[in-house]
Amino acid sequence: MTERLPEHAKQFVDGKNFVVLGTLNADGSPQLSILWVARDGDDLLLSTVVGRQKERNLRRDPRVSVIISDPKNPYRYVEVRGTASLTETQGRELIDQLSQKYRGGPYPEEPGAVRVVIRITPERVVQFG
Amino acid sequence: MTERLPEHAKQFVDGKNFVVLGTLNADGSPQLSILWVARDGDDLLLSTVVGRQKERNLRRDPRVSVIISDPKNPYRYVEVRGTASLTETQGRELIDQLSQKYRGGPYPEEPGAVRVVIRITPERVVQFG
Repeated sequence: MTERLPEHAKQFVDGKNFVVLGTLNADGSPQLSILWVARDGDDLLLSTVVGRQKERNLRRDPRVSVIISDPKNPYRYVEVRGTASLTETQGRELIDQLSQKYRGGPYPEEPGAVRVVIRITPERVVQFG
Repeated sequence: MTERLPEHAKQFVDGKNFVVLGTLNADGSPQLSILWVARDGDDLLLSTVVGRQKERNLRRDPRVSVIISDPKNPYRYVEVRGTASLTETQGRELIDQLSQKYRGGPYPEEPGAVRVVIRITPERVVQFG
């Protein structure tokens, strides 16, 4: 089951705004991080690197929740729940695209790092505010 | 085991900034919400109401993660992991205190609502940026 991303959430994502990603640690406890975000239709695209906590968590259990908030009104936000799919394809392209969006230039070289695309298709969207 | 809250995280919490709370749904998936926050020493104090999703989640499994971010620099943030304790004592006082802080006045009456204090003692603090 998938759900559409609301229009205002798309606008927040398309701006230079950050999202909070929730994943699950090995013991089942929640783990949060702040990330850049891009969008492909209703899907959210995030970038990470093989071996990082969130990447290891997502390989083990792909269930996620993402908070997208209105930068001008933090009382207005959307929680997106879904399942993350990970791929190394386009991994470097995505981090460069994100870096262009947020910093206006390509991302620094990362010798030895394997960039991963985290794709989240919304399964449940909860709107607040 | 407890850990101290870093000084800059205390400053963010003491300002009119919001935090993101991660809890666990009944199926073990992560649930996120944006909340007002107060502080008692190194403990974080959040407010909710009996019956809300996060309250039911915390009664079942009190493991939480909280993101505290620098409002002026979202690349700088702290993830606080811990265990939430819930109490109705001072529940109304806390929501009024938070409302004074964030909106400059008492919180509206909530007939029938039972306010709960969520107290989070940091067990692990991860600093970014």
